[in-house]
Amino acid sequence: MASGKINVSVENIFPLIKKFLYSDHEIFLRELVSNATDATLKLKHLTSIGEAKVEYGNPKIEVKIDKEGKKLHIIDQGLGMTADEVEKYINQIAFSGAEEFLEKYKDSAKDSGVIGHFGLGFYSAFMVASKVEIITKSYKDEPAAHWICDGSPEFTLTSHDKTERGTEIILHIAEDSLEFLEEFKIRELLTKYNKFMPIPIKFGTKKEALPKPEDAPEDYKTEYVDVDNIINNPNPAWTKQPSDLSDEDYKNFYRELYPMQFDEPLFNIHLNVDYPFHLTGILYFPKLSSDLQIQKDKIQLYQNQVFVTDNVEGIVPEFLMMLKGVVDSPDIPLNVSRSYLQADGNVKKISNYITRKVADKLKSLFNENREDFQQKWNDIKVVLEYGMLSEPKFYEKAGDFVLYPTTEDKYYTLAELKEAIAPNQTDKNGKLVVLYASNKDAQHSYIDIAKEKGYQVLLLDSPIVSHLIQKLEADNENLTFARVDADHIDKLIQKEEETISKLSDDEKEKLKTSIETVVPKENYTVQLENLDSNTAPFIITQPEFMRRMKEMSATGGGGMFGMGNFPDMYNLVVNTNSELAATILNSSEDAQKDLVKQALDLAKLSQGLLKGEELTAFVKRSFETLK
Amino acid sequence: MASGKINVSVENIFPLIKKFLYSDHEIFLRELVSNATDATLKLKHLTSIGEAKVEYGNPKIEVKIDKEGKKLHIIDQGLGMTADEVEKYINQIAFSGAEEFLEKYKDSAKDSGVIGHFGLGFYSAFMVASKVEIITKSYKDEPAAHWICDGSPEFTLTSHDKTERGTEIILHIAEDSLEFLEEFKIRELLTKYNKFMPIPIKFGTKKEALPKPEDAPEDYKTEYVDVDNIINNPNPAWTKQPSDLSDEDYKNFYRELYPMQFDEPLFNIHLNVDYPFHLTGILYFPKLSSDLQIQKDKIQLYQNQVFVTDNVEGIVPEFLMMLKGVVDSPDIPLNVSRSYLQADGNVKKISNYITRKVADKLKSLFNENREDFQQKWNDIKVVLEYGMLSEPKFYEKAGDFVLYPTTEDKYYTLAELKEAIAPNQTDKNGKLVVLYASNKDAQHSYIDIAKEKGYQVLLLDSPIVSHLIQKLEADNENLTFARVDADHIDKLIQKEEETISKLSDDEKEKLKTSIETVVPKENYTVQLENLDSNTAPFIITQPEFMRRMKEMSATGGGGMFGMGNFPDMYNLVVNTNSELAATILNSSEDAQKDLVKQALDLAKLSQGLLKGEELTAFVKRSFETLK
Repeated sequence: MASGKINVSVENIFPLIKKFLYSDHEIFLRELVSNATDATLKLKHLTSIGEAKVEYGNPKIEVKIDKEGKKLHIIDQGLGMTADEVEKYINQIAFSGAEEFLEKYKDSAKDSGVIGHFGLGFYSAFMVASKVEIITKSYKDEPAAHWICDGSPEFTLTSHDKTERGTEIILHIAEDSLEFLEEFKIRELLTKYNKFMPIPIKFGTKKEALPKPEDAPEDYKTEYVDVDNIINNPNPAWTKQPSDLSDEDYKNFYRELYPMQFDEPLFNIHLNVDYPFHLTGILYFPKLSSDLQIQKDKIQLYQNQVFVTDNVEGIVPEFLMMLKGVVDSPDIPLNVSRSYLQADGNVKKISNYITRKVADKLKSLFNENREDFQQKWNDIKVVLEYGMLSEPKFYEKAGDFVLYPTTEDKYYTLAELKEAIAPNQTDKNGKLVVLYASNKDAQHSYIDIAKEKGYQVLLLDSPIVSHLIQKLEADNENLTFARVDADHIDKLIQKEEETISKLSDDEKEKLKTSIETVVPKENYTVQLENLDSNTAPFIITQPEFMRRMKEMSATGGGGMFGMGNFPDMYNLVVNTNSELAATILNSSEDAQKDLVKQALDLAKLSQGLLKGEELTAFVKRSFETLK
Repeated sequence: MASGKINVSVENIFPLIKKFLYSDHEIFLRELVSNATDATLKLKHLTSIGEAKVEYGNPKIEVKIDKEGKKLHIIDQGLGMTADEVEKYINQIAFSGAEEFLEKYKDSAKDSGVIGHFGLGFYSAFMVASKVEIITKSYKDEPAAHWICDGSPEFTLTSHDKTERGTEIILHIAEDSLEFLEEFKIRELLTKYNKFMPIPIKFGTKKEALPKPEDAPEDYKTEYVDVDNIINNPNPAWTKQPSDLSDEDYKNFYRELYPMQFDEPLFNIHLNVDYPFHLTGILYFPKLSSDLQIQKDKIQLYQNQVFVTDNVEGIVPEFLMMLKGVVDSPDIPLNVSRSYLQADGNVKKISNYITRKVADKLKSLFNENREDFQQKWNDIKVVLEYGMLSEPKFYEKAGDFVLYPTTEDKYYTLAELKEAIAPNQTDKNGKLVVLYASNKDAQHSYIDIAKEKGYQVLLLDSPIVSHLIQKLEADNENLTFARVDADHIDKLIQKEEETISKLSDDEKEKLKTSIETVVPKENYTVQLENLDSNTAPFIITQPEFMRRMKEMSATGGGGMFGMGNFPDMYNLVVNTNSELAATILNSSEDAQKDLVKQALDLAKLSQGLLKGEELTAFVKRSFETLK
């Protein structure tokens, strides 16, 4: 029996690390700036506990392009490294300095915000550089070290005359990566990844006007000086306490996050939790854009103020993906698959926490200023309704703040709605009937009729509303929803009283026959009703159940399988007590046909069914009668 | 000065490889089955060139779950390894066996389809296993070897009494990965990644009925035997020659690719190129689903019959993302970023090749059976029109097969269309005017009027059509498009002759004034025209330019900035030669108002502008006149 140790072949693994460590080459800059931040924060910690007897000062990180020399410099004023430390941290790949540091200073380092895993990230430099130099001077009293490596596993390590504390990384940019010598490219990367990192990052200089001296002459010319151009905000809003932030601060941070966006957020939710995981962040409810397009990938994910991704799938509950803002958590495992994320207990807890926090915030917004909440309802309803359908925990809490607006712009919670309509809209079987419309214009005549009866009509126009009312019916006994055009209003809410028929059964039979000779059977079922003589003589209705099932299957899931392909079904409700009914009965056969045809066309107009050739003929006919 | 060699610390890199090598843990099975396939194909090659003096036979790969023992076995009958080879290929991480093999047998191995990079893929086993065993017997006359490693860098290597050629990998599944002992999970993974790999993969057994013996008694009961359950199709259609495949074969392969889909593809495009890159595949034009939702991620990307991803962004031109099918190319770099892919010259060539191939196929389909092509037009037009807008190379070729259908179901190419309408639709300035409608129903009355003049009206109803006609106008001198309702037809195509006015200028002025007292100025511009006395007295039109710009800015890009928010602009064209015009002039003031109101309502009906309260009032008024 032989035994031994697996050997990692350096010649072979080195190009692999260079090639496969990150799928995106541009990541190298994030990694190097993270290391620089790391080194600075470590020094801050060591000085704060008295272990490093040096002045911490106001260190910054500088990124500098040397276009002629084809070099990129990343310079920090952090704790630096001795030659021994270079040997240990750089020459031993995958020896993670940060981990060792955290282990050693476990208790005190907890809040110092140490970021990186020094070991491997550094090597991402070779993704874009043909040669890398490190010039570094430790805070300890030892000479500076100079390390050079050309991308082969061979390196040289000599001493250097650098006297200022800190590390300078020099990348000799490879021929296939010259884009990383362009100012705009580096600016873009720093803005993308390092915009909120905790140490100021200098990239070039900018002109700043000197204050005008008090004794300035008339023809004084403003003088300018070069000052450092700091590219990041080291103290973004989400790292602060909500009590220290005003409404304006939140709005300003929104503009900082989305400088190209000109809308104002409706409101924000500040996330802040320490246990059982650490998570901070700010979520914004944006004004929905007019085209209602679902805007995903708008929430940015950070880890200790380093940008990671704008794909928060699996971390933020799906129904909140339309929100904007940032989430910062060191506890979210990266580089793992989405399916793994979804199964991870910690991540699930984060998602649940966000759901709960959003629900709580909505409840308090509703309670604090209902007027304002109602005004914002149209912009937030789709998110909330989708949340009710997709997150049981959100659904439980939704009763406290989810609103049901009427066509008259009243806003009810479900409980309020039930109470308001109970006296008038309970039918003879004790069912409470909620009437709704999906479009005020298209269903105008039906809404009008319902209003005449003193009924309230909700305006429910989100695309997923059929799913929502299906769920509400299932969860609320004796509650039923019906669209105003689902039947004649007296059939939708059946009361005890019955209208007496003006026509005899014989006359009705005659009427029905003459109508059915004109009205195509395959499209309409003729339904004679004894209604109030003042209501419209012909109305076209579309039964609730079938229509709702079709809508549900059209908006994905639910409904009945294949239902989406069923033809639309309509009823033609004829008011036998109308004057027109009598007129038809008393007319000649030809006149009957003309009357029924015209009445059917008018009923179709009200339901939006008179189109194309039929509409053209109707308009032509009507113009004829005018002249 | 010191110099040395960078040292990869095994203790540290090993867990890293386990964790970060692949973001998706489930990949391990793809890697191990790829290795097994690799070992089998290598043996095939060596026997074919006489280097291995053994019987190749009909080798297969077996995947076996031992749920009780918490083990997963992957067994192949490939070339196996000697103890020395285990030492070389397994113990030296990142030593890629496949690369060395290819180097050695460069010329003859080209077509043997060697897949993997043995070195690293194998270690993905440790993502799900706490202990891994290899039992392997080489085709060479040497004893079998048995390698065991528990995930630390320590291993043992002993001999083993295995006598059959090949390699067995035994994964002792870790406690956090027990899902990989579930039959359904393994079946899912094999189906996802290995469905078309070139060596048969056995996963369990299935019952198969024995043929009924000829002398079977009356009460014969069918007998069943267990046979291997082969989970893959080692010879998928795209690996064959188009000449060897019938229409039915292509349809069957479509069903094999999308077993849950019940539609039939419209037609297919077989891709096959060897130089300057190797690429095969079959693309299908699917029937568009009724909701016109863009279905991305439907094309699957393979490398040597191993599934890689269903995200082909950057590889397949964007306008073809709605297609379905497979693309197989070993030349597409994986594990690199999308932006890198898009910049890669080879990948760009692949994308261009696919564009050209699709255009050629469309041209030949059009030429071979125009009737059939026209019938499919509605299902393919959006893809093609989008292609014309986004790929200049496709636009160049599109003249040969892109069709312009009329509302009468005639189909013209652009050249044919120009020829057909030139005699009748050239205006007095020599401009050729193409009339079109976006909706046969909504614009019915306008289409009717155009037809009465003998004009052809195209039906262009794709959402991006405004962009397309903008482009066609720019590229074709003296060609202009106008929607039928953009103005009165005599204004859209102005001829020399002028209709004489029945009204004096004075009467016109009076008429205009009385109309403008009723018609709201902010919505309509009243435009008096001397038209044929038989055409409609009132028509509402919507100027082409403004409407098109608004549509363009609504469908993203183009148009004018901010144009989308402009209100709709309409003209009310009044035919001063109509009888109604005379009637209005000769009526009392009150009657004038009623007439204008009713005529305006009728004009609005034709343009779909009479809605809500106005429509309800119109219908009520009209019912009144009936009784």
